[in-house]
Amino acid sequence: MVLNPENTRRYKLSISCPDTVGIVAAVSQFIANHKGWIIEAHQFADAESCLFFMRYEVVADSLPFGLEEFRAKFNDLAERFSMNWDITDSAQRKRVVVMVSKESHCLSDLLYRWRAGELDCDIPCVISNHETLRSFVEWHGIPFIHVPVDKADKKPHFQAVQEQIASVEADAIVLAKYMQIIPETLCEKYPGRIINIHHSFLPSFIGARPYHQAAERGVKQIGATCHYVTPDLDAGPIIEQDVLRVTHHNTTKDMVRLGKDVEKAVLARGLRYHIEDRVLVNGNKTVVFA
Amino acid sequence: MVLNPENTRRYKLSISCPDTVGIVAAVSQFIANHKGWIIEAHQFADAESCLFFMRYEVVADSLPFGLEEFRAKFNDLAERFSMNWDITDSAQRKRVVVMVSKESHCLSDLLYRWRAGELDCDIPCVISNHETLRSFVEWHGIPFIHVPVDKADKKPHFQAVQEQIASVEADAIVLAKYMQIIPETLCEKYPGRIINIHHSFLPSFIGARPYHQAAERGVKQIGATCHYVTPDLDAGPIIEQDVLRVTHHNTTKDMVRLGKDVEKAVLARGLRYHIEDRVLVNGNKTVVFA
Amino acid sequence: MVLNPENTRRYKLSISCPDTVGIVAAVSQFIANHKGWIIEAHQFADAESCLFFMRYEVVADSLPFGLEEFRAKFNDLAERFSMNWDITDSAQRKRVVVMVSKESHCLSDLLYRWRAGELDCDIPCVISNHETLRSFVEWHGIPFIHVPVDKADKKPHFQAVQEQIASVEADAIVLAKYMQIIPETLCEKYPGRIINIHHSFLPSFIGARPYHQAAERGVKQIGATCHYVTPDLDAGPIIEQDVLRVTHHNTTKDMVRLGKDVEKAVLARGLRYHIEDRVLVNGNKTVVFA
Amino acid sequence: MVLNPENTRRYKLSISCPDTVGIVAAVSQFIANHKGWIIEAHQFADAESCLFFMRYEVVADSLPFGLEEFRAKFNDLAERFSMNWDITDSAQRKRVVVMVSKESHCLSDLLYRWRAGELDCDIPCVISNHETLRSFVEWHGIPFIHVPVDKADKKPHFQAVQEQIASVEADAIVLAKYMQIIPETLCEKYPGRIINIHHSFLPSFIGARPYHQAAERGVKQIGATCHYVTPDLDAGPIIEQDVLRVTHHNTTKDMVRLGKDVEKAVLARGLRYHIEDRVLVNGNKTVVFA
Repeated sequence: MVLNPENTRRYKLSISCPDTVGIVAAVSQFIANHKGWIIEAHQFADAESCLFFMRYEVVADSLPFGLEEFRAKFNDLAERFSMNWDITDSAQRKRVVVMVSKESHCLSDLLYRWRAGELDCDIPCVISNHETLRSFVEWHGIPFIHVPVDKADKKPHFQAVQEQIASVEADAIVLAKYMQIIPETLCEKYPGRIINIHHSFLPSFIGARPYHQAAERGVKQIGATCHYVTPDLDAGPIIEQDVLRVTHHNTTKDMVRLGKDVEKAVLARGLRYHIEDRVLVNGNKTVVFA
Repeated sequence: MVLNPENTRRYKLSISCPDTVGIVAAVSQFIANHKGWIIEAHQFADAESCLFFMRYEVVADSLPFGLEEFRAKFNDLAERFSMNWDITDSAQRKRVVVMVSKESHCLSDLLYRWRAGELDCDIPCVISNHETLRSFVEWHGIPFIHVPVDKADKKPHFQAVQEQIASVEADAIVLAKYMQIIPETLCEKYPGRIINIHHSFLPSFIGARPYHQAAERGVKQIGATCHYVTPDLDAGPIIEQDVLRVTHHNTTKDMVRLGKDVEKAVLARGLRYHIEDRVLVNGNKTVVFA
Repeated sequence: MVLNPENTRRYKLSISCPDTVGIVAAVSQFIANHKGWIIEAHQFADAESCLFFMRYEVVADSLPFGLEEFRAKFNDLAERFSMNWDITDSAQRKRVVVMVSKESHCLSDLLYRWRAGELDCDIPCVISNHETLRSFVEWHGIPFIHVPVDKADKKPHFQAVQEQIASVEADAIVLAKYMQIIPETLCEKYPGRIINIHHSFLPSFIGARPYHQAAERGVKQIGATCHYVTPDLDAGPIIEQDVLRVTHHNTTKDMVRLGKDVEKAVLARGLRYHIEDRVLVNGNKTVVFA
Repeated sequence: MVLNPENTRRYKLSISCPDTVGIVAAVSQFIANHKGWIIEAHQFADAESCLFFMRYEVVADSLPFGLEEFRAKFNDLAERFSMNWDITDSAQRKRVVVMVSKESHCLSDLLYRWRAGELDCDIPCVISNHETLRSFVEWHGIPFIHVPVDKADKKPHFQAVQEQIASVEADAIVLAKYMQIIPETLCEKYPGRIINIHHSFLPSFIGARPYHQAAERGVKQIGATCHYVTPDLDAGPIIEQDVLRVTHHNTTKDMVRLGKDVEKAVLARGLRYHIEDRVLVNGNKTVVFA
């Protein structure tokens, strides 16, 4: 059997459960019993939380059944080990809603990657509180939904946003420089599914104007952080981070410009991990099987 | 059972074999059958060579037998899958001979890491073609063996070196800036066990005076490469590489100085991978389960 | 006098000449005599070539005259020190022709930066040997010129390209993954003005399919190189380079995808340096006053 | 005149003053008038503080006088521009006291660099609150001064430390993992001359056990910060910072080990900048003319 791993339909099995002896053996035996071909495998035992995490990619066609039957058959084993688990199909692309404000660097980068096939997802719509980026989005054939914000009362805005997200049956929401604080109700409706890019190396410079804070402190590197959104501002589980070097020559405005490159790179990596079901949440931390 | 993963004696099982269905299941079932606790696992299927590589770390005390019995019991399974395989015991420290010339940056770094417990190996001796570094080595309580080189006839030198290596029963030889070309016979006696640090980002600047070559070409980053030594000069399997930025301001002499930091970091990482049995050779490439 | 350095019109003075005592004093005195305000200054003495390089940015409005008069007045001093020199006006944006084939990562990145104001230049047209990227370019309001290549005879193609470049009075030509070897005549017509992005860390992997070469050699980092094009393939002066880490898990196809991020970042930085007149050619090397 | 820039005695002139037109011209003219040969030059205008910073390196033998006469002659010019300024002689090596506790990674690295000639300074003594590192220090021929700390009353300790520092006429004090909070009086006695290495990417994780804080927050990179010590804990002007990547696999103990490499690299770079008079303090920030 010759396999081209790049073009192969895969099932992605993610598991977390209390750590004990025999988990890997049980799971891999289950898959081997059904002649499943594991082409990628990761595992991690967190000595602190005593939790065990694993992720398998199995060639879909190597198994004699589909996801539904897999789920039914696997259930006993999952219960035996008290697993939180999920299995997804690479052929079923995630539906990712992108939310933006006026700044286009993250959006441009994501849409480039999307149309080039680097991000394996659907984008049912882009939602924005401004009209600025409509033409660029629509050139891509993606609906652009303008939902204005009334600063005096943001409730109607978020109500409309939430309905729009629900109506397109989004699997994930990406805040690609959306610049509004997400209300608690929305956070709780999509736990581990709202992805933000913050323009600092968290936990440094939480909140507004992080580059100004960075310039004032005189740091020698600036960074960006991709994280899941929780009601606690800029404090959700971190998926990915990176930094770049600055010097005394760099003004705040330079930092804003230079930082864009890190922001978009970090967001693209974080989103890719999420889309490929490589991120498992571990309390307020993440396990990223990259 | 509470485990401190840092201080736990482990068996390290490394396998490479033709890729097929069921390898992971068979191996993990074998270990589970004996109540073995897998605390680290890596695998890789090379679509090009159609080879499969895996590495398990098992808590030694979780198994009811030692290495000898493991080897005997595992043999059938290994033969069934045509495995190249090995299992080592973390309690059995590797014996690493370090060879140097006059430059001390890599040696200083390795010996610091060794005495700080960062490199889990024994160093039965340091061999050098110069007396320069004797006092520093001896301060560490390590025998320093001076084996002079006669440029007109290097054979006696390498004969003496080979005898010294054999007499201390070395598991690995580290060329920490040894600056002599290893003869083919020695290479072949220790395949995948002689580790060199080359002061360029290979395959750029093979051979002598790579920083001078780099300065002449006007590159904007310089690098270093840790690789296994084969009879083909600077062409063996690469274990680890890294680079750092230089500018037009940096003279060749600057590059030599700056490059030392990359050289010693890359060698330390490469050696650590080797000592922990994380490097599996795949043709002229390496699989590094870091 | 309060100055906003970001929005200030500047004269950019670049000088290279044989190194001797008094150059900086003479030049800065000349500028001070005319009440010029130097807001950025760099200099470099190359001990090897015995050449001296310097670059000043002067606030345009601080001088009592324009470029023409500057040139006339500065001439004596320049001759005294046998200077190669040039002065440009930040208000006079460079005209940059972008050449592409079918791949869009560098083009998308450059056009994003251009429309976001990160690249301070005009793009009079994009030239391509394929129709693939027409719609994307035209959405930006930039003319897209399709000049097909006849593999049997590439001369007419390059004749047409050269005429197009001349007709828009290009100051610089960017090969943003153009994938054709530039003929010597074109190279010589625009020395130090044709900028290429090569998808390897030169001088490693010159020529075709560098990622395949990299995968075969088993390197642990891949890179990209932005350089001026000379008739000698992939051997012109290097402007900028960078790398990223890969592992045994990364297939050649992964490297191609991952490498795109380095390619576009390195090209964007290199082009920015060029546009801002920060690159001075020093034999087959560059001085980059970044 | 042929110059080997590596071995040349240099005067290092550092200036900060209110920004205005003509500073560079005046200074470079002064030097040119005395036939001084400038071999390195940096300048920076801080648009925010409206301060101007510059640093020249002049070949000592190219001037017809020594430092004392330079100072006398330069004074008028300095007063005209209200300069804070200093000039030092590369032949006059700084006297750097190193303070340590029990951890040896930074000390080992600094002493390696010192004996290899990478750090151009004298080390009149190493002071420690423990005996642990005596033998290693003394092997280098450097006096090791043990000054115990009484936790109940640290005053006598710091009194003795301060006397020791004064008795060896230290120009700078390096806290190479000294792990004690420096009292305000000592900070104020040596402003801009006490250099600390903090094991986090400040301002993240100020105070104790930063790696534990980092592990708990689940960051994806850890870092280190070299800064001048002020009475405000971990809040002094930052000289240098760097980071390295960690994953969920890395325990706190791993971070401690991995972080050592960043700590020692960042401290070595920061100290080198300081020794070469490349760091100019700008409020609570630094200008580093690297």
